[in-house]
Amino acid sequence: MPKYHDELDAVLRALADPTRRAVVERLAKSPAVVSELAAPFSMALPSLMQHLRVLENAGLVTSQKHGRVRTVSLRPGALDVLHLWLGEQRTPAEHQADRLGVHLTRTTPKGT
Amino acid sequence: MPKYHDELDAVLRALADPTRRAVVERLAKSPAVVSELAAPFSMALPSLMQHLRVLENAGLVTSQKHGRVRTVSLRPGALDVLHLWLGEQRTPAEHQADRLGVHLTRTTPKGT
Repeated sequence: MPKYHDELDAVLRALADPTRRAVVERLAKSPAVVSELAAPFSMALPSLMQHLRVLENAGLVTSQKHGRVRTVSLRPGALDVLHLWLGEQRTPAEHQADRLGVHLTRTTPKGT
Repeated sequence: MPKYHDELDAVLRALADPTRRAVVERLAKSPAVVSELAAPFSMALPSLMQHLRVLENAGLVTSQKHGRVRTVSLRPGALDVLHLWLGEQRTPAEHQADRLGVHLTRTTPKGT
């Protein structure tokens, strides 16, 4: 699946920067206009726009312009590729713990 | 939590490289000796050792030397910091879907 690996590369590279990660954290709460996103960072607007472009190219965010205001949103399912990869890295011991968890859920009476 | 953010930075930077990610994928299956890890990559041993050092500094792998053989393992809980961060980024819509899932699990008779 070369597409999956390219997507994963882009997502991880985008998230490896603390500013871009902070933007994703903010957008997970709700969409925001660019000036709102810039506020917590002592950063020139062009630098923030460059970070937003990296996030957009990685498929993590989308943006829409209404008049002079650009609103940025976290793309639904943006982090799915990372969830998927992490799931694949479960070690044999973790798989065993999962099976135990499922067993306990099934055999424990509800409400306990 | 500055320590958490530093750890997350290091883990994401380490995983943003496809070779290092492939090493983690291999080690999730079982520990491996260095020569085994080097085999799938057409890469000089010193380059691989450098990748292993980045992974070790990020707390993702540990290694032990027995005689002349170095065995590398995925550190238990190595990816927990990334699981944690991803969990925190769940959008309001995803939280709602979670609650629906819990409700269905609780109200659906077992065995269906």
